[in-house]
Amino acid sequence: MSTKPPSGTRDFLPGDIRRREYVIGVVRQVYERYGFEPLETPAFENIETLLGKYGEEGNKLIFKILKRGEHEASGEADLALRYDLTVPLARVVAQYQNELPKFFKRYQIQPVWRADRPAKGRFREFFQCDIDSMGSTSLTVEVEQLSAVSEVLTTLGFGDFTIQLNHRELLSAMLEAAEVPLTVHGEALVAIDKLDKIGRDGVQQELVIRGVDAKNAQVCLMALESVPAFEQLVAGNDRGAAALDHIGRILRLTADTPAAAHVSFVPRLARGLSYYTGAIMEISVPDLAGSLGGGGRYDNLVGMFLGRDVPACGFSLGLERIIVVMTERGMFPESLAGGGVDVMVSLWNDEARSDALALAGALRRGGLRVDVYPEADKLGKQFKYASSRHVAFVTVVGDDERANGTVGVKDLRSGDQSSVPRAEAAAYIAGRVNPEP
Amino acid sequence: MSTKPPSGTRDFLPGDIRRREYVIGVVRQVYERYGFEPLETPAFENIETLLGKYGEEGNKLIFKILKRGEHEASGEADLALRYDLTVPLARVVAQYQNELPKFFKRYQIQPVWRADRPAKGRFREFFQCDIDSMGSTSLTVEVEQLSAVSEVLTTLGFGDFTIQLNHRELLSAMLEAAEVPLTVHGEALVAIDKLDKIGRDGVQQELVIRGVDAKNAQVCLMALESVPAFEQLVAGNDRGAAALDHIGRILRLTADTPAAAHVSFVPRLARGLSYYTGAIMEISVPDLAGSLGGGGRYDNLVGMFLGRDVPACGFSLGLERIIVVMTERGMFPESLAGGGVDVMVSLWNDEARSDALALAGALRRGGLRVDVYPEADKLGKQFKYASSRHVAFVTVVGDDERANGTVGVKDLRSGDQSSVPRAEAAAYIAGRVNPEP
Repeated sequence: MSTKPPSGTRDFLPGDIRRREYVIGVVRQVYERYGFEPLETPAFENIETLLGKYGEEGNKLIFKILKRGEHEASGEADLALRYDLTVPLARVVAQYQNELPKFFKRYQIQPVWRADRPAKGRFREFFQCDIDSMGSTSLTVEVEQLSAVSEVLTTLGFGDFTIQLNHRELLSAMLEAAEVPLTVHGEALVAIDKLDKIGRDGVQQELVIRGVDAKNAQVCLMALESVPAFEQLVAGNDRGAAALDHIGRILRLTADTPAAAHVSFVPRLARGLSYYTGAIMEISVPDLAGSLGGGGRYDNLVGMFLGRDVPACGFSLGLERIIVVMTERGMFPESLAGGGVDVMVSLWNDEARSDALALAGALRRGGLRVDVYPEADKLGKQFKYASSRHVAFVTVVGDDERANGTVGVKDLRSGDQSSVPRAEAAAYIAGRVNPEP
Repeated sequence: MSTKPPSGTRDFLPGDIRRREYVIGVVRQVYERYGFEPLETPAFENIETLLGKYGEEGNKLIFKILKRGEHEASGEADLALRYDLTVPLARVVAQYQNELPKFFKRYQIQPVWRADRPAKGRFREFFQCDIDSMGSTSLTVEVEQLSAVSEVLTTLGFGDFTIQLNHRELLSAMLEAAEVPLTVHGEALVAIDKLDKIGRDGVQQELVIRGVDAKNAQVCLMALESVPAFEQLVAGNDRGAAALDHIGRILRLTADTPAAAHVSFVPRLARGLSYYTGAIMEISVPDLAGSLGGGGRYDNLVGMFLGRDVPACGFSLGLERIIVVMTERGMFPESLAGGGVDVMVSLWNDEARSDALALAGALRRGGLRVDVYPEADKLGKQFKYASSRHVAFVTVVGDDERANGTVGVKDLRSGDQSSVPRAEAAAYIAGRVNPEP
């Protein structure tokens, strides 16, 4: 029987979890400061909640759960694993509309599952950290989200991220101005979204394949290369002019926030998902292909569940990619590199077991993380074990120490051993584990 | 389309999450102090990892995931959702045997899924909080776990819990002494485990149905009613005498730990799972049918994955049941009852938006959780909204305040409004949100 985790998934050993919890802790704290509140939804949803929300390709990547009991043999599925955190949110907003505040702002940090082909940095189980603001069309929403996401990244130590900003209405206006028929706008956006991946010639070809006249495709591609050309093309269109004004106001308002100097207007940003209706945003860093996260305004999705539209805008950060970059760059605090135990209580002999457990209790009451060596064994072996686990201190209580009311405290980093009055042992070790700066 | 979560699952709104995070925070902190380290495993496992580990009834309750792509139509499953945290741990110990310490101690706080019939307090998705210690047969392990679990419950405010303690070898010795054939020992334990549920007569009947002679069944049931009778019956057997000694030593060693006064030897405790080999333990409180958690020693399970046995002992706390009892008893700290926002920045008019965002940034830098009302609206409406969300403070910056460099701070609890120099606003509000005791 294989003991590996399933393809595309990972086991997280203690060191992994400490790094993940560090990042999640920063994300959570910043989002709380921005007034977002926590939400969690079940790992699986009724299958009809998910189907038809992610396009044809997305549908294929959904993990489906077999019916149970007598219906198992039918081979049918009635449940499916969460594919993102946005569709469950839309369901929640519809279900609890009378309990949730008018401008519901939530953060959600949970795993999602996609049956993608596993590859470097691409997993079948991965965490998303989402913020979404429901109920308002005000651009305060976009500005606050850009600011919050920027503060998360800055707090984690990222200085060099950029946030690309665009607007779906600008892309529509461009396609309209370039005389691309409305019926192929969706297809055209899918092609344009690949500009960074397959280059200008590739997109030109793909646009033609998807039914765009070659000359019109060229008009678009030229406009996408320069902001002034793009602005000139779309400004002739009323909706384009309004969206340009909107983008300009977002940029001006971010100037006094942590997002300042990171956000820029990028006409070629298209974003894959079909449900965006307004501003779209994407974060990248120089040394990572693909994005650290992205988002945008989607004013119609909740309507699919509620029957009436609720304006919404959201931003999703990819935990795994943030961790990949932070690991490669060595951005984690040194304090995370140590083990999870401050001090190990060694066991002198079987008769000393009760005393060792009592000492462990006293050290814990002093706030220390304490392990007890479970078996009476040679002291050298116990030291070696502690050292292999990156434990810095080991206590030794032999017959003399018990008689004296002292504790031997061995510092495995220096090799020194000190004799400390038993009542002071916790404070003595705590002061050396977390020395004052 | 239904907007409810799937049968047996729940959405956790912000107030729910705050209560859950509070309990999880205590559990995590105590377990870290006891030297347990965090581990997380994927939500699903290869199906063969889970099948055959939980008995026939357990197998039926496993959620199975359909194969994908061209194999979907086969109706076959290749993955299954985690059913508990113990079997994945056994797999992890086998997989990473060269990386993990000899005495690996881990805690794991994650959801598990069981296709049980949903009922009051019984869910299909629920969290377990497990500790397990691998690699040692020393009773330090049992004592430390009893102590850790007791400290969790005491820290959460439980004073009246009891931990029942028994030993599988004692039950074997009892069955042997009562001349119950070895072949029906397993069946007999399943019946005895129901003593609290179906009573003595019910168990007598069930023992007979499961192939135990009526007279022998009576011998067992009489012994299970009194500790001295039980001890007398099992002490004639070598393994029974050894297990009695073991239990006695555990009880003496817990006397100096937080478990003291909570643990007692209860002969009728049997525990359902078949993989236990030594001490078994179960926690209960007077006002909850069923247990808050339980555990025991299982020295053979890892061998199913590794090919050689690794001694192990674990304890699982049920998060949902702890929360049910704490909610009914009103045990959560008052601070959790408030909203998630300390202060709301009101918006005077559209022109003041940039200034409102800058004020929000300054208040956040002062450590406050700050929401910004997104739309310029009547001030009364903004106050009402803040009040409905249990936000205690609202800032008001009108034309006068901007000119003066002040901020109006309205305390919605008292209705008072004060004018505060802008640079002092964060400290002013922070001092009133978290007043010194």
